Order: sequence, then C-alpha cells, then structure tokens
Amino acid sequence: MNYNTSRLNVLSPDMSIADLKAEKLNKLTEIVSDVAGTLAKTVIERDKAGGTAKTERDLIRASGLLHISLPEEYGGWGLDWPEILGVVRTLAQTDSSLAHLLGFHYLQLATIDLYGSNAQRDELYQGTIKNNWFWGNALNSISASTTAVEQDGDYVLNGKKYYCSGAVDADMLLISAHFCDKLLVATAPTDREGITLNHDWDSFGQRQTDSGSVTITDLKIYQHEVLTSPGPAGSIRTTTRTSLTQLLLTNVYLGITESAFEQAKQYTLHQSKAWFASGVGHPGQDPYILRNYGNFWVQLQAAAQLVENAVDSFQHCWQLGNNITNSQRGKCAVDIATAKVFSTQTGLEICSKIFEVTGARATSGSQGIDRFWRNLRTHTLHDPIDYKLKELGDWALNEEFPEPGIYS
Amino acid sequence: MNYNTSRLNVLSPDMSIADLKAEKLNKLTEIVSDVAGTLAKTVIERDKAGGTAKTERDLIRASGLLHISLPEEYGGWGLDWPEILGVVRTLAQTDSSLAHLLGFHYLQLATIDLYGSNAQRDELYQGTIKNNWFWGNALNSISASTTAVEQDGDYVLNGKKYYCSGAVDADMLLISAHFCDKLLVATAPTDREGITLNHDWDSFGQRQTDSGSVTITDLKIYQHEVLTSPGPAGSIRTTTRTSLTQLLLTNVYLGITESAFEQAKQYTLHQSKAWFASGVGHPGQDPYILRNYGNFWVQLQAAAQLVENAVDSFQHCWQLGNNITNSQRGKCAVDIATAKVFSTQTGLEICSKIFEVTGARATSGSQGIDRFWRNLRTHTLHDPIDYKLKELGDWALNEEFPEPGIYS
Amino acid sequence: MNYNTSRLNVLSPDMSIADLKAEKLNKLTEIVSDVAGTLAKTVIERDKAGGTAKTERDLIRASGLLHISLPEEYGGWGLDWPEILGVVRTLAQTDSSLAHLLGFHYLQLATIDLYGSNAQRDELYQGTIKNNWFWGNALNSISASTTAVEQDGDYVLNGKKYYCSGAVDADMLLISAHFCDKLLVATAPTDREGITLNHDWDSFGQRQTDSGSVTITDLKIYQHEVLTSPGPAGSIRTTTRTSLTQLLLTNVYLGITESAFEQAKQYTLHQSKAWFASGVGHPGQDPYILRNYGNFWVQLQAAAQLVENAVDSFQHCWQLGNNITNSQRGKCAVDIATAKVFSTQTGLEICSKIFEVTGARATSGSQGIDRFWRNLRTHTLHDPIDYKLKELGDWALNEEFPEPGIYS
Amino acid sequence: MNYNTSRLNVLSPDMSIADLKAEKLNKLTEIVSDVAGTLAKTVIERDKAGGTAKTERDLIRASGLLHISLPEEYGGWGLDWPEILGVVRTLAQTDSSLAHLLGFHYLQLATIDLYGSNAQRDELYQGTIKNNWFWGNALNSISASTTAVEQDGDYVLNGKKYYCSGAVDADMLLISAHFCDKLLVATAPTDREGITLNHDWDSFGQRQTDSGSVTITDLKIYQHEVLTSPGPAGSIRTTTRTSLTQLLLTNVYLGITESAFEQAKQYTLHQSKAWFASGVGHPGQDPYILRNYGNFWVQLQAAAQLVENAVDSFQHCWQLGNNITNSQRGKCAVDIATAKVFSTQTGLEICSKIFEVTGARATSGSQGIDRFWRNLRTHTLHDPIDYKLKELGDWALNEEFPEPGIYS
Repeated sequence: MNYNTSRLNVLSPDMSIADLKAEKLNKLTEIVSDVAGTLAKTVIERDKAGGTAKTERDLIRASGLLHISLPEEYGGWGLDWPEILGVVRTLAQTDSSLAHLLGFHYLQLATIDLYGSNAQRDELYQGTIKNNWFWGNALNSISASTTAVEQDGDYVLNGKKYYCSGAVDADMLLISAHFCDKLLVATAPTDREGITLNHDWDSFGQRQTDSGSVTITDLKIYQHEVLTSPGPAGSIRTTTRTSLTQLLLTNVYLGITESAFEQAKQYTLHQSKAWFASGVGHPGQDPYILRNYGNFWVQLQAAAQLVENAVDSFQHCWQLGNNITNSQRGKCAVDIATAKVFSTQTGLEICSKIFEVTGARATSGSQGIDRFWRNLRTHTLHDPIDYKLKELGDWALNEEFPEPGIYS
Repeated sequence: MNYNTSRLNVLSPDMSIADLKAEKLNKLTEIVSDVAGTLAKTVIERDKAGGTAKTERDLIRASGLLHISLPEEYGGWGLDWPEILGVVRTLAQTDSSLAHLLGFHYLQLATIDLYGSNAQRDELYQGTIKNNWFWGNALNSISASTTAVEQDGDYVLNGKKYYCSGAVDADMLLISAHFCDKLLVATAPTDREGITLNHDWDSFGQRQTDSGSVTITDLKIYQHEVLTSPGPAGSIRTTTRTSLTQLLLTNVYLGITESAFEQAKQYTLHQSKAWFASGVGHPGQDPYILRNYGNFWVQLQAAAQLVENAVDSFQHCWQLGNNITNSQRGKCAVDIATAKVFSTQTGLEICSKIFEVTGARATSGSQGIDRFWRNLRTHTLHDPIDYKLKELGDWALNEEFPEPGIYS
Repeated sequence: MNYNTSRLNVLSPDMSIADLKAEKLNKLTEIVSDVAGTLAKTVIERDKAGGTAKTERDLIRASGLLHISLPEEYGGWGLDWPEILGVVRTLAQTDSSLAHLLGFHYLQLATIDLYGSNAQRDELYQGTIKNNWFWGNALNSISASTTAVEQDGDYVLNGKKYYCSGAVDADMLLISAHFCDKLLVATAPTDREGITLNHDWDSFGQRQTDSGSVTITDLKIYQHEVLTSPGPAGSIRTTTRTSLTQLLLTNVYLGITESAFEQAKQYTLHQSKAWFASGVGHPGQDPYILRNYGNFWVQLQAAAQLVENAVDSFQHCWQLGNNITNSQRGKCAVDIATAKVFSTQTGLEICSKIFEVTGARATSGSQGIDRFWRNLRTHTLHDPIDYKLKELGDWALNEEFPEPGIYS
Repeated sequence: MNYNTSRLNVLSPDMSIADLKAEKLNKLTEIVSDVAGTLAKTVIERDKAGGTAKTERDLIRASGLLHISLPEEYGGWGLDWPEILGVVRTLAQTDSSLAHLLGFHYLQLATIDLYGSNAQRDELYQGTIKNNWFWGNALNSISASTTAVEQDGDYVLNGKKYYCSGAVDADMLLISAHFCDKLLVATAPTDREGITLNHDWDSFGQRQTDSGSVTITDLKIYQHEVLTSPGPAGSIRTTTRTSLTQLLLTNVYLGITESAFEQAKQYTLHQSKAWFASGVGHPGQDPYILRNYGNFWVQLQAAAQLVENAVDSFQHCWQLGNNITNSQRGKCAVDIATAKVFSTQTGLEICSKIFEVTGARATSGSQGIDRFWRNLRTHTLHDPIDYKLKELGDWALNEEFPEPGIYS
C-alpha cells in the first residue's frame, strides 16, 4: 500500500521512536498483518450478514492486541497513541467494524486512566491483562434516560443506553448514569444481572459494531466500581476523553477511505476494461481515470497529513498529564476537529466517486465496494459537520477554543 | 409533493395539452397513484430481498400502464413522451427498479416503431394490447458475443447478453446479435427454446431490475421477427433510440433524487431532534439544516428544469418523424446529455448529504434511506460521466454534435 | 452565440409572442445589437478607467432603449418583462455596468407603477418619453440616515444615500427618506438644489455603475412628488419591487457569465496553443479542455433555465396586478431566489475557471478577462447567499414563503 | 498570525533545528518583519500601479536577504530550504510579487549549484555576496526562439525570452538558448550590450514581477559563462531545479491565501456589520460566517501541511546531492505536485469566497482585497492543473513517477 507516505509504515522496524524496540514492532506488524489477513477473507460476507462478529472478536482476543495500550508495568506493551491509533487505522483499512470495536476497547481503558483512581487503574488494568478482557461501551452521556439511586452505600441503575458499540460479547463495560446532578461512570462485568444486551443494531453501515441498545434493570453498581472523577465536568485532563473519541473515529474514517482507494485501484488495474471511446488499451491509461486518481491521491494525502498531525498533537497532550492547560487542550481539539471534518468530507466523496474509475461491473454484490460509503456515511453522523465547522470558525475568526463537551 | 414546480403535475387534470381529455388524465393519475401506493408499502423490504418483483410486475400488468405509450388506433392511450416519462419519473419517486422496468418496456415498444416495418408495428402493438405483454431487454449492442447465422431463410443465434434489464418475467424480448457486419435486432417470446434467463443480477442498487445475463443457445429467430432497419447505423430517426434510452435513465435519476429529498424532509420534520448546540427547539429551525435544504432545493430545481427541457426536446424530435435532421437530432442529444450529467452529479450529492439533515438515527435499516444512493450510484455508471462532459465540451467549444452511437 | 438555447433568441423575429409584431422585434434586435457593438469596442478600457460612462449613457439615450418598458399608450414600446430583461441580459453579455444602469432605469419606472397614483404614472411616464429621461437610484431603504420633515405641506430631506447606482448623469431620481415611521419615496430631478452626487464609487467591479453616495442637504420634495403608497410595507403588489430588483441582478449575473464563457471560447479557439503534453494539435481537441467546457456548458444551461423560469414567473405575477396573492408572490420569490443563488455560485466558478481553458497568456491586461470575476464578485454581495439558502430551505422544508422585505 | 500551526513560526527563536543559532534566527525574523512591514504600507497602491518595484527591490538588497541561501563559506547565511522558503512564504503573505522575485533569486543561485562547475559556483557566489547581486530570470526553456551560435570559442545569442520574472532591475541574469540539440544555460550581467528589457508585463496579477519579455540581439556569452551541465537532460540532481521552481511557486500560493484569510479576518472583526437578518450583534457570531471561516481554516491547514511536507521532502533530496536516486527524486516530485494542486484549488476558492464573510463594502478599491484572487489566478496558470492531476494519477494508480521535465 504505497499510497500513504508515512503512518502506514508505523509498524515497520525502521521507525525512529527510540524507546520502542525493533523486535516489539516487528512482532506487532506481524500480528496486525495476520489479523487483517484473516478478517479480509470474510469481511464482505460479514458486512452482508451484520450481527456480532464473535469469531473475529475472539481472534482479536487471541492476538494480544487487547493489551498494547496498557503500560508495561502491568504486562502491557506500553505503546504510544501514534502506534495504537496506527493499529486502529490499519485494521480499518480491512474491517472498519472490528477496528471501531478495538479502538473503543482502547478508549475504555484510557477512560479508566482519565477518570479513575490509581487503585482502580491497578485493579482494572491487571484484570484486563490477566483475564484478557475485551471492553465495551455503555457510556453515552448525552442520553439522560439512565439514572442511579443510592442504596446502602452502593448504587442501583435503571434505564436504557443507546449506541453501545461493542457491548455485545464484551467482558466488561463502562456504564454511565445520572445521579443527582452528576454523571456517574462505573465499570461492571457484562454478564451481571440487570444488563440486557438488545442486539438491535440495524444501521446500513458499520454493521458488525453492535452499536445497539442496552437495557439496564435494577443493576447493582458497587461503590468501588464508580470511577472517582467522572465526566466532562472534571479537570481539563478528563475532558481529553472526548478528544480521544473523536480521534479514534477520525482514524477509522481515514482507514475506510484508504481501503476504498486501494480496492478501486486493484479493480481498475486488474478488472476494469478501457472505455470504448477512450482510444487507449487499458483503463490505467485513460486521461480521465488518471485525473480522478490524481484527485483521490491529493485528497487522501491531505487527509492523512491532518490525521497524523492530530495524532501527534493528542500524544503530546496525553504526555502532559495533569499539567495540561486549557489552551493546550484547545489546540489539540482544533487539530482533531480539523482532521475529522476534512476526513469526513473527503472520504464521502472518494467512497462515492471510486465507481467512476472502476465502471458499472464493480457494483456487483460480490465486490462489496458499496460498503465503504455505507460504513463512512453511518459513522460520520455522530455530531453534525456544520457545527464542527462553526466551532472551527470560532477558533479561526475569534480565537476561541472549542468548549470541552461530549463532542468537542 | 410541492417541491417540484411543474412536471410532477403532469398527471393532474389542469394540464394544458389540448388533445388529452381531462378524464383520461384523471384516470392515469389515479392509476399511477394507486400503483405507487402499493409499491411503497414493500419497497424497502424488496430492496433488501432483491430478485424478481413478480407480484409488482403483475400489478403493473393489471394497471393498464403497459399500454399508455401505444397509439389509440391500436387501443393504446396515445400519450406523448412528456406524459409517458412523467409516469416513469413519478414511479421512480417510489420504486426506481420498477420504474426502470416500465420505462424499458416503453423503450422496446418505441424501438419497434423506430426499427420495424409498418406490418411489424401493427402485429406487435396489437399483440401487446391483446396479450398485455410486458417487454424486456436483451438488446445490448455493445457486447459482441452474440452472433447469428442464417439457416433456411431464418436465423440461429448463440451467445450471451448482459445487462438484460427486465428480461426475467418478460413476455417478449428485443434481442440483438451480430450477423456479418450488421446488427440484427429481433423480437421473440421469452419462453422460446434457446433463451435461458440466468437470474444473476447482484448489484447493490436497482436490485429488482433483474439486469443480469441471458444465455442464448441455438435460438431460432424467424425472418419476420427481424426488425427491418436495425441499429444505430440506420437513418437519423433510428438513432434517436439512444436518445430515448438516455432520457429514460435521466428521468429515473431525477425521480430517485426527488424521492430522497422527500423522505429526508419527512424525517427531519417528524423524526429528527434539534441538535443540542443549535439553540432551537426543532430541527426545522436549525440554520444549517435550513441552508442544506436550500441547497438541495436549488439543485433539484435546476435538475428538474433541465430534465423537462430535454423531455420536450425529445418529444419535438419524435414528432418530426423521418424528417428529423442531423442538427435537430444533435441538439436534442445535447439537451439530454446536459440533463443526464447534471442529474447524476446533483443526485449523488443529494442522496449522500441528506443524512446530514436527518441525523444518525436515519441510518437504521428500517428506513432504507441508503437505497437512494445505492440505486443512483449503480444506475449512473452505464457510460462514464467524463466522456459525456467531453462530448458536451465538443459541442460547447467546437460546435460539434455528439456522434450518434450506443450512448450518445 | 449558440450556447444558449432559448432566451438569447428573444429578440429574433421568429419568437412566438403573438402581440409583438415581427417588425418591432426586428427593430429592437437591431438597436440592441448596435448598442452592444459600440459598447464592446471600449469596454475593456472603460473598465480600467472606471467613472461615469457619459458617452455610453448618451448612446443608450439616443437608442430609444429607455422607452421599451413603457406602455404603448404613452408612446413606449409596451414590452413584457421577458423582452425587457432579455435586453438587460444581452447588454450584460457585453457591458455589465451599463446593463445594470439600464436595468435600474426600468426598475425605477416600474416603481412608479407599483407605488404611485395613476396621475403620477401619467405625468412621469409622459415626461420620460418626452424628455428622454434616464432614471437613477437614490432609493436604498436599508440605510436609515436620510430623514424627511414636513414643511408647509411639502417635505425637506437631509442625509446621505449609499449605493446610488446610476444617480450620476441621471435626469431623474427615485429618492427615499424616513418620515415618522414610514418610508417616503419620491421623485426629483437630479439637478435640484440639495442633491450632491459624490462620484465616490471605487469598487473593483461593476466600475462604471457609479454606485457611490449622494448627499442630501435641505432637499425640497413637493407633495405631488411623493409616491402615494410607498415601500415594502404596502400591498402585496408593491412588494414585488424587491422581486424585480433581484431578478434584474440575476439577469446581469447570467449575462456576465455567458460573456465570460464566450470570450474564453473565442480565446481557446483562436489564441490558445495546445499544451505540449496533450498530444493534440489544437487545444480544442484536448480532453481536459473539452471536459471543462462541458462542465461550463452544463452549469450555464441550468442557470439559463432557472433564470428564464424566474422571468416567466415574474411576468405572470406582474400581469396579476393588484389581484396577486401572497402565495403567488411567494412562489415567484422562490423562483427568483433559486435562480439568483444558482447563477451566483455557478457564475463565480466559471468566471474563475475559464483561465484553465485559455492558459496563462490570457491574463494579459489587454484581454481584460479578469473583469468578469471582478464584476460578478462585486455584484453578488448585496445580500449574503447563505441567508438566501436559508430562506429557500425554509420553503423547501417548512413550506414557508420568504417574508417580503428589502432583499426577499 | 495564529491560524498556522507550524511553519509560519519558522523564524521564531524556539525552533528546534539544532545547527541554527538562536541569534541568527532572531536576526532573520527581525529583518523579514521589517521588510514585510515596509512593503505592506504601499502594497495596495503598487498593485494598482504595476511596473518595477525599484524602491522595494532596493529595500530587499539592503536587508541582506539576498544572501541567506548562500553557504557560510562564501559569507552567506547557510540556511536550509525550510527557512529559505519560509522567508518566501512569509513575504508572500504581504507582497506576493516581491516574494516571487526573491524566490526566483534563490532559484537562480541554486541553479548555479545544480548546473555549474565548482569554479563557477565559487566565482558567482562570491560575486553575489560582494556585489549584492539581485538575480533575475531569462531561462525559460520551453520557448524555442532563442538560439546560440559559436564564435571564436564563445557564443552569440539572438531571440526573445518570455516570462522573464525579475529581469528588470536585476544585476545578473540566467539565460538559456538552444545550441545545436542542447540547451545552453549561461549567466550574464543584465546591462551587457544585446540585452533589451521590454518592460511589457501587463497581466492582471502579480503585477510587480516584471514577468515580461527580454529581447536578445547579438548577445555575446563567453565560454566561462556557460554552465557546464545544463538543463533537464542532465543528471537526476540537475532535474531537481524543476522541483524547486514548482515548490517556490507553491509557497507563494500558500502565502497569498494565508494573507487573504488574514485580511478577511481583520475586516470581519473590525469593519463588517452583522447582517440584519442574522439576529446577532456582531458578524463574528453569525453562524454562517463562522461556518465559512471553519471551512477556510480546514482547507488552509491541509494546504499548509502538504506544503510543509513537500518542503521537507525537497530539503531531504537536496541534501542527498549527487547520490539522489530516481525514486527519491520521484517521490519528492509527487509531494510537491500534491501540494501545488491542493494549494491552487484551495487558494482560488478561498480568495474568491472571502468576500462572503466581509460583505459588499470590502470590494472597495482602497482595500485591494481582489488582488489575492488576481495574483493567485495569474500565478497558477504556468502548467495546467489537469495535467498535474494526470501525473499524480499515474503515480497513484500505476506507480509511475512524474517524468522529469520543465514542469515536473
């Protein structure tokens, strides 16, 4: 995949990050390549089938990829965000549903670091390594329907959570609920009584993300399971959870679009025929097809540069820890929003226009090339792009940073 | 459906075409409305299922719509192209697969008029009325693989035809084959020995058009079934078959896009919620949502004007009959290509961007809103838009008309 | 100028408007052609010079074009808006400043009909014919700085008016002022004491429109000069003045863009050289140049259709007179706004991209090809296009008509 | 100028390039800031006047900026391309004509290094330092009209050179001529007999670049003035002259666009009024204006990232010296072409759309805001963007590098 100049090589042994041993990266490259290779074999039929990718989730479990973001002190790989997000983007080039789920696993683990106490981090990170937990999401703070009441020092939760990506088949969940005026964020095993996974995700894209609903009925949450500093209302550092969420999505968007480009390229080179009026023998010599590929290239390069810049920006913020200032957080949020907007716009255009360089036969269901547009279209609707642009305009014109929140 | 200012009212009794009785139009309006209403009930699930829409094809058979393009002297309705294509566009607003098939039925009937002798027209038009034939397409002259040999004054055909929209469940077919240096075009009943319908259409869009392949094995074609003046190599008038094909497709494109707009509108009005950062109570007051609808409106109006202009232009050419000159044919081809290019570009953009005015929940499979992009994307790849633009540029700059051919 | 299919032929004798004699149209065609021919000779140097086009205004005076919108009963030509606006658009294809001024002359005359009494119309229309008055604009109701006080049954005005297109060298002016809570609209000869033309128009486009300011100092306005039913606050019919203003501008936009297209075409055909890497002998055979021309063509056709539709819509409203309903007015306003938005967007793109089909040498000052972008850019900023889209969105989504006002 | 995240800070003392002393960068920052400040005072009126910016060229001469690209061993500053091109981009943010001329000065000096012998480099670099030569361009190899004949071991040239940016008021010129089948490249003092500067640059943009023609009449060129390894036909390294030319232009494009953005921003903040229908008190709160600024921001960030990536890529190639391989050269050419295409497309859009965030009054000639579009439009036509896209498509699809030539 030579179209990308930099980050796709993140996993190659010649990368210049001094504290990562070449052997470690060699191993990671091999793992990701193996997993992607296996996912690729069934991705088109699984897109058609939807539902839970149980076999593939177990493949990820077995691969060791669930541990790469955890510190070495707990037995993790201790990778930085450029590498972690590089794994997500690379897997998204093959299977954007599974990449999404793995990315959200890393997000939940980061959330424990951001929101929890040291003791909670110790316990949960050790548990993750020891039990090879796959984490899922039931933390969607915009939905106000789930509430907690106190009971003997613990809590009882009731309500319904939506867009719980990866809750199905998760071992552990992050769950949020409204308690008095605060947002309570807690962890719980998925199989605890009171948690019902509804298996109701039916969107036309990202079909194996199980982003459906979870019903919470008299769910007991123990005091020690409540993360101590919950939610966007906390310190500046805790608000970078939103930044990470947005950045994960952006890497998935880019991976989808890179994949669309690559599949189109292979199709044009090996399956398309020259248009009868083109006067050339192979579509790879057609002036209009070349022009379209040139346009895709330019847009993809710009997207990749912006995404990689945002990843570096986030890593910088992450390393600042609790010392992060509002303006450092703000600048990073701007970088991420910039990359997200551009990747969205560019990605949708490329995923729709690739058919103009492959021709009519590439619409065959056996090729599954429509999944790129469906996946990206579904995944880019969490928060409206116009409001993202407004936020960026407020920065560009008024030099006001985005206000930390659930989408910014 | 108030978004369209003119042609959607084609079927209303106040239209000012003197030779059409108000009663006839009232009846047509009623029929189309009934058929569309029935199709609408199952269109989303049938899109998922694909395959042959046998029940719906029989509904069309029963409706009388198969006869509207035939002259009154044969028992048809004697409608002009603005009305016939108005029916196609209106049905495409509900079910673009069935609209495509009905449109191609009209195309085959027009082909008989263009290519056949008076005797052939008499026989086949009478047969169509009497037997309520639904015509299908096996006339794809670009594929060179089907050939004919002469045998005792008749012909025997062998080969395979692709993109045979509507051949499955058709009563009669138009079939083409290469015979010596000529293109032989003939009619035959679909159930004749030697015709095998392969039921292999599997594109991700226009899923109920049965646009798959037909295998021809030792198919006997009788001399009287061969249309006398076949193919684009014939007189100027015969070359307007291509114009009609392109114009039919263009009306389907427009209908798809109008439908996407309308479903998005109803969703925004009745199901979407205002974005929390918008400061308004209803999405219908959101400044960005309104701006997007404004853009959709402007593009749709321009598309509709161009399509209606092209329809009028074609009707004018049709009425000229054999007197049509090269420049009259050329001007009409330019009008149609202009409408086709614009409808394609605009339609793809609208069918993808509508989700930005409905929000994430509208990606639910139960809504089926992705089908508009899938149908349009699949259907707009017959001939590359860049070459269409080149042709139009040759006209705009060099004042050269498109050369009559299978796509121009 | 064969690129336009319909309205540019408005002045040809084969037009099918029954009540316009062929001789009259022959004469009009000849006049417009003569005037345009003369304007063309100096338009590039006059664009550089800016200032008042005194000679060219006198040419228009001498041509008889100042009378074509007036009813035959007063000695005018009695033309309808399609013809009047056809003249404006045709002249804008040569000189968009002078076309603007002539269009505004027609606007002031229409204003008298809309706002004034029958007696005022009689007097001022007769005066226009008899004295060959060229009317100018000092009626910009958004600026609140000019006020009127009553004095002995008449009025005294003080203040400053901006964007007074064509006030310089005008014989008569329409002037507005705030009087109590109302807008007072009156006519006055330009040379009356108290009117100072400031000759301060210095925008980079539409440089000979003299759209600068007018200082009003103790200007006496007699009772009989005050039009009886002033302003947008009046009846529905009076509010169509705004519609006409917007429609005039839109016709000028289209004329500018058509002219840009035509000059580029002539340049490509006769002065450009084929790009060395194109492999063709003439730029007219270059696949990318052809594609660009195809794009220009499609956009121009759509713009022309929308503009002509809006013109017909306005003519229909005009003929309704005082019977016009709010929804008829609203539909026409939507048609005009649609055409205006599209012409603006398309025009700016074409006027900037034409250089990509002419090449670097076409930037020579002697060609003046940059004036199209400068004229259109300057002229399309009266009211923000985003708010126009919002208005159209309110119609498209909520079925609310634009509220009559100074820009809608 | 906070809108740019990285390279605009190139001149600030905290940059992390170890081998550049903070003092040197402090001094450079000060010089560039002073020069830009002085240029800014007259840039609008000089744009109107056109012609040779003699005073400003002398200001640059006096500033020391003519020496920064020369190695320290000759008394130059020894800066790398990121810093040199940072100066060009920064000056282009104020005055894109002078930035262009200074950039071309650096280009001629680099050409001596690429094409000349060590002795020639010694002599001409020393002469440049000692005499403070400002170099100009008469090396336009595409024009075949200038030829050389041998005479007594030296050469005599005749012909006419076009697009000789900065030849007027240059102290020294690089001149090319066709000699037999080769391109002869030589240096000569501008005041040598036989060189006539025609002062005929009259494009509507980049008006003070003196990019007109030079007439060559019996011009004597001595043997030692002929650079030894002339032209694109030479080694791989010599072909990077084209890369540098394209990269210089790209930095000027970006500087122009950044400047357009900045002037628009200041205008919106301090001179625009809120639109009456916006319901906000200041245009900086208008949702549509904010959205537009957000779009500008995203595009500018992407452009800046691509340009900076291309600059780094070129610096890398430069440092490889004669060891550069074809694929290293090719990759750099792809990076530069990518940045150039994107900067062109994005820049033209921004420079035209800024008026939609400033409003109509910003078209005043006193603001000169149209110069951004004029400068960029003029400067982006050297080679057609469609062919650049084709080249990039050939890379993206077929993995073929651009063939080295006068534009690639």
